[in-house]
Amino acid sequence: MPDTIFSRIIRGEISCHKLYEDVHVLAFLDINPIAPGHALVVPKEPAVTLDQLSDEAAAAIGRVLPRLCRAIKQATGTEAFNILQNNGSQAHQAVHHVHFHIIPKPNDEQGLGIRWPSSKLDPADGERLQQAIVPLM
Amino acid sequence: MPDTIFSRIIRGEISCHKLYEDVHVLAFLDINPIAPGHALVVPKEPAVTLDQLSDEAAAAIGRVLPRLCRAIKQATGTEAFNILQNNGSQAHQAVHHVHFHIIPKPNDEQGLGIRWPSSKLDPADGERLQQAIVPLM
Repeated sequence: MPDTIFSRIIRGEISCHKLYEDVHVLAFLDINPIAPGHALVVPKEPAVTLDQLSDEAAAAIGRVLPRLCRAIKQATGTEAFNILQNNGSQAHQAVHHVHFHIIPKPNDEQGLGIRWPSSKLDPADGERLQQAIVPLM
Repeated sequence: MPDTIFSRIIRGEISCHKLYEDVHVLAFLDINPIAPGHALVVPKEPAVTLDQLSDEAAAAIGRVLPRLCRAIKQATGTEAFNILQNNGSQAHQAVHHVHFHIIPKPNDEQGLGIRWPSSKLDPADGERLQQAIVPLM
């Protein structure tokens, strides 16, 4: 995969406001925050999208999320927050190295705004999707 | 914590289109999808928000995400997708039991739309936040 700003941060070539590091994971403040405390959690393993990441690296990210969320909540005093992870340009991915956003939501203006075009699941569609997905798991 | 529709699904009292289950995790199709293949990944451990979840349950969710994403991508034929996890009513949480959305993004209309009010991180704010967060980790 091509080099990205995150692989350069992982290698220490670009500085960051580091929040946490272990053998699998690096977490640091986003330089273009959408709310105070907006942080990124990045696997050291190179992968463009989450479906390409190893189970071990993905588990390591999952494991540290609650602790990071508690620390960011306490430091910012903001109770509500969103976790967002984008895959593919169509889905708003801007840096092509897997990253999870932790985004405090202090009020309606700051943090993540979402558009949610929901509809009812047609039971026949549900059956068909379930039967397509389960054998692939 | 109060009972929710997800604890009732976990106990088998309400049916679902189940996609995956292990000792920690249940995954099923969202009944109000915002795109075909929209799925939910829920810890069996009762927790309202991610900061309240155990490391083990959070790691188990992380571990299964890549596999679920691959299966949903293949079954739907949609390459791009978002992972979203909301905490608190201010952050759009509707069911008060931790859940991760896997949302295919087939086009601009379907799937997750986001509003992203970003600004530049002031270096002094970054220092202050880093120094507040790191001792809590």
